This record gives sequence, structure tokens and C-alpha cells, in this order.
Amino acid sequence: MAKKGMTYADAGVDIEAGDRMVDLIKRHMQRSYGPRVLGKHGAFAGMFRLDYNERLFKRNYTDPVLVSCADGVGTKVLMAIEMGVHDTVGQDLVAMNVNDMIVQGAEPLFFLDYIGTSKCDPKWMADIVKGVADGCQLAGCALLGGETAEMPDVYGDGEYDLAGFAVGVVELKKIIDGTRVERGDVILGLASSGVHSNGYTLVRRIVTAAKLKLDTVYPELDTDRTLGRVLLEPTRIYVKPVMQMLRSYKVKKVVSGMAHITGGGIVGNLNRALPDDCNAKISRDAWDVPPVFDFLATRGNVDQDEMDRVFNCGIGYTLIVRPDFAESVKRQLEKAGETIYTLGKVTAGSGKVTWG
Amino acid sequence: MAKKGMTYADAGVDIEAGDRMVDLIKRHMQRSYGPRVLGKHGAFAGMFRLDYNERLFKRNYTDPVLVSCADGVGTKVLMAIEMGVHDTVGQDLVAMNVNDMIVQGAEPLFFLDYIGTSKCDPKWMADIVKGVADGCQLAGCALLGGETAEMPDVYGDGEYDLAGFAVGVVELKKIIDGTRVERGDVILGLASSGVHSNGYTLVRRIVTAAKLKLDTVYPELDTDRTLGRVLLEPTRIYVKPVMQMLRSYKVKKVVSGMAHITGGGIVGNLNRALPDDCNAKISRDAWDVPPVFDFLATRGNVDQDEMDRVFNCGIGYTLIVRPDFAESVKRQLEKAGETIYTLGKVTAGSGKVTWG
Repeated sequence: MAKKGMTYADAGVDIEAGDRMVDLIKRHMQRSYGPRVLGKHGAFAGMFRLDYNERLFKRNYTDPVLVSCADGVGTKVLMAIEMGVHDTVGQDLVAMNVNDMIVQGAEPLFFLDYIGTSKCDPKWMADIVKGVADGCQLAGCALLGGETAEMPDVYGDGEYDLAGFAVGVVELKKIIDGTRVERGDVILGLASSGVHSNGYTLVRRIVTAAKLKLDTVYPELDTDRTLGRVLLEPTRIYVKPVMQMLRSYKVKKVVSGMAHITGGGIVGNLNRALPDDCNAKISRDAWDVPPVFDFLATRGNVDQDEMDRVFNCGIGYTLIVRPDFAESVKRQLEKAGETIYTLGKVTAGSGKVTWG
Repeated sequence: MAKKGMTYADAGVDIEAGDRMVDLIKRHMQRSYGPRVLGKHGAFAGMFRLDYNERLFKRNYTDPVLVSCADGVGTKVLMAIEMGVHDTVGQDLVAMNVNDMIVQGAEPLFFLDYIGTSKCDPKWMADIVKGVADGCQLAGCALLGGETAEMPDVYGDGEYDLAGFAVGVVELKKIIDGTRVERGDVILGLASSGVHSNGYTLVRRIVTAAKLKLDTVYPELDTDRTLGRVLLEPTRIYVKPVMQMLRSYKVKKVVSGMAHITGGGIVGNLNRALPDDCNAKISRDAWDVPPVFDFLATRGNVDQDEMDRVFNCGIGYTLIVRPDFAESVKRQLEKAGETIYTLGKVTAGSGKVTWG
């Protein structure tokens, strides 16, 4: 018998399991397809029609600007792995990208994901992509493609990392970039659904240091859900309420700036929407900090300053609006199901967020 | 003295090193910018103008279709890490994506990258992004954005993974999808620059099993370069020669199908460009297999079949063209600096690649 040569499978890469996985994830991807998605599954690249056929594309663009961003969900993946729950981090991945994109006033068109992992377990991968497809449906965009890379020498056994990428479009004249922010503008905050997808390296350190258990219900945190479930709560996707509200003002430019509150907290993100001569003065009493943040601060002995810099602390998205329209913007967003807080005002300053 | 609270830096995440890195990579990104890139560095999302202003956008689209794909470079990153050379894998990352995209006839517009790593060493990260920017310049697209995620609990010390995303555009009527491939069409192959970015898990197993040294020059492989340098040779980017050639045929549809030869080799990729009733009959003698593949097969005791399924074996990109135009396509691509082989012909069949 001839000596068997070295194969790719010997080296730890299972091409057939990959093929099974592709079949499993196809139906999740197709859930998110609209008539603008072209071509068949398995092509070298995904195709999305950007045309002016009114039946397909109701909102016409005179001077379309493509808007794009890339992001991951950080070590929230490790929380998912520890919990054995893989079908929610996909929504986080979409949220981190599309919430960034709408800041500039852009409508998300499509999304692609990258999963790097030790071994393509078809069930896990399909669960992850299910979450991504859920997120795409919530954001109204198509899951146009993706890549799953089996790299047993890079990722620890049963571990993975996720990266996502979103493309959207905005009319050139309707780009929101904060340059129109002025003194007196009102700052509105949209409630977050929890920790969202930032600060999980610290969260996990706190869990370990304070000997917390992910499968335990802590009544001061939540009367029903375990700590793990509270921490895995998917990141809220603000696309539909925000885009609907923006579109309702056909002529007036009512919103002068927006910010998605991610790593860096309110202090490190709202400042990105401010001109150099303005501050955002925020009142700490303006909103209810959800129990999860007090729980983490107390159990982990984390200073207020550090909490502010790492977590969203209950506010996932902020809008800066003209004072005359603050109430109507608020009402519209509330009607769409959001919880809105009036956080403060824009004052003269130097591009910073101040507490007052 | 008050007890110091737990911080994000204690948890292994260095936000300030991240800021230094952003400054370092900014100039690499800006090298790739053209007049269609809008907005400032540091915005929530990158912006790319897709308009019809002829000065900015010479090639007008009547019915533009956006084409997008996601890919990584697999465990070639581990080869880069072992060699301590981080400024070439970025080109591989761009190549893996843009070579996929041109298969459908699309012109790459912009690119975004994701780097997941244990620790954001500003020098390493800047080197990686330098390679990405080099690749973007070779492909004629803008490096519009990206994300660097510091995840000490996911990635081993000094390790990282790369994911890339590309967006391009093609005129609806000019999409190439293989449906027009017919019997008698000629198959052309473009030489690869080496192993490109697939099969590195197997390559690394061979290096270990055969006790090869990355810092050694093996004369049967290369008279100057070490094994490591040969294996790190960046993936060739075929965008400019292929797009230039396609554009030169303004009316006639000369190219009926194309395929980027990645994981799966010629057998597993050229078939993706074939209709169900055609085969691609390829002659093994048609091209010169570069020494690196014979070296890997011999030292690793890898069967021919397995070599065919894992590596490009010297052909990085294939075109299926009408027989009357095969010579003129070949001449154009040669003029643009490519090495072209006539690999075989399309025959009646069942959507497979056959050797003959």
C-alpha cells in the first residue's frame, strides 16, 4: 500500500463541513434579500442594484454618496461562547455597524460578515449567521455575503471572532456631520438595551474578580434573567426609527448632529459630533441608569469616570436637534418605540462633553 | 489613599496606544484617497461619492450594480508573524477581495479592513495598514476605513487576524457571470506570484514536518530569497490589466467567464464560471509550475490531487474568451505585464474541470 500523502484535512481544515455550513446559512441570508439583490449564492462577490427604477428603489438619489464602515463586537463573543449561545452576537455585529452609519444620515443597503474560527461547526456558524440575518432584517438591509475562515492555529478551540461591514447611501446635500451644530441645540438620548457591544474585556474581568456566576439570577440586576442573559442582550438597532424621523422632515434640517455611543461612552463619542467652539452639557440626572451598570460598578469597584469612558451607561444613541423641533423629534421616536431622554444642551465651549 | 478602581487598562486594553496607531495609519489611508472620498478621518463611517460628475467619475453608469465581497488571508498571517514581516499581508488581503470582485466585471471603488489582535502595537498595525494601502493603490481603490480591535483574551500574544471588505461597481448589462460560456471558448491563465493566500495551514504543517527553516535559502526553490520570503510573496493583484482589457472591447462581449483561483485550486474555482453543460478541459503541460509548488509537494509528500485542490499551482486567475479574440486578449494582458498561458478549451460536459 502506498504511503498516504499529507492532506489539508490532516492539517485540520475540513472542506466538506464548510460546504454543509454554506447550505445551512444560505436560507438565513436569503431572508434579508430584497429585489435589489442580484445573482446567485456562491458567486465570487455579492451584487446589489443601485438604480433608479422607482419600483425597486423608491427613494431617488441625485448625488448619491456611499457610506461604509467596519466593526466587530469585541470580546462579547467570548461571553457568547461561555454561555453556549451563538445566535445573538450576529445582531450585535450588525448593530455596531449600522448604528455608526446612520450617524451621517445614511440608509444601510447591505452587510457582509467575516467569521474567523478554530473549526467550522456548521450548527454554530449557522446560529451566528442567523443572528446576523436577524440584525439585517431589523436594519432593513441585505446580508449580501461573507466569509468563514477555519484557522485552527489562530483561534483557540471552540473560539471565534466576528467582523462586519456595512454599506449605505446618503444624498450628498443631506449628509449630517455636526458642522451645523450650534449653541442652544437640544441633546436627546435614546435608551440602550444594555451593555451593547463595548467594554466586555472589563465586564469579564469583573465577573472573574467578583466571582460572579453567569448562570445565576441576581435580583438587584434582574428578577428573571441570569447575569449571562442580561450581559448577552443584543445591541439595539436604531436604524428604522432614526431614518423614518429624518425622512419626515423633507425640507428643514432639524437634526444637526448625531453620535452612536460605543467604546469611549457618551464623553468619547458625542464629542465627535461637536464643532470646535461648542460643548455638550449633559445632566447626570436626565436619565435612568439601567441596573446592569450599577451592578457592574459596585461588584467591580469601578470608578464613575471609568464607567463613563467604557460603557454607554444606558444611552445608546444621541441626537443634537434644533430646540424648536426637540419635542416633535422626541414624539416621533417615542411613537416608533424608543425611550427618549432630554440629556442637555449645546453651549459655547471647545468640542467637549461636560457634566452639569 | 482610596483604593484604585478597576480600569479598562487593567483589563489589558490600552486606549492611548490605539490613538497613536490611528495617527500612524492615517497617512497610509490618505495615499489611497481620490477626489471621490469625502469627509474627515475619524468620522463614524467613511464616505465615497458615487455621482455622475464627469470630472470625478469618468466612466458613467446607467444602471449601476454594487458588487461586494469579504475575505481574509487565512494563516498566512502566522507566517508573517513568525517572520516578523508585517507590511506585505495587507496587500494579500486586498488581493483576495479585489481579484474576487473583478470576476464579475466590477471596478473596485473602495476597501475597508478589520484587524483583530492581542495588543495594538502601533508599529505593527501601521505596517499592516501600509500593506493594505499598497494593495489599494495597486487595485486603484480607496482605503475608506477600518477597525482595529484589541482583544487580549481572543488572540494569542503577538498574534492577529485580518479581514477585508471591498465594494465596486459594474454596469448591469456588463456583468460577467459565466452564463455566456460556450463550447470552443479558450481558457487563458494568468501566472500567480507564488502561493498567494490559500493553503497556509498545510504549508506550515509541511514546514514543521519536513523540518524546513524559514530563514534558509533552498537553491532548488530560489537562489536568493529565503523560504520564508518566498512564502510571504504578496498575492498578485489582477485588477488593472483585467479591467483595462475588458474596457478595450466597448461593444463586443469577448470574455464569457472568469475565475479567481483561490482555495480549491483551478478544479474548485474555474468550475464556478461554467454552465452545467460545459466542462473546462485543461492541459497539465500548458504552463510552468513554479518551483515553490514542486518544493512543497516533494518535501511534504503531498499527492498531485491534493496539490490541485489546495493550491493555485502557478495560475492565479483564469479567463474564458471567445476563440477569435483569444490572441488579442492575450497580447493586451501581456502588454500590461502579465504572463499568460493558454490552458485549454471549453468542451461539452457537466460543469467540471477535467485534465487532458
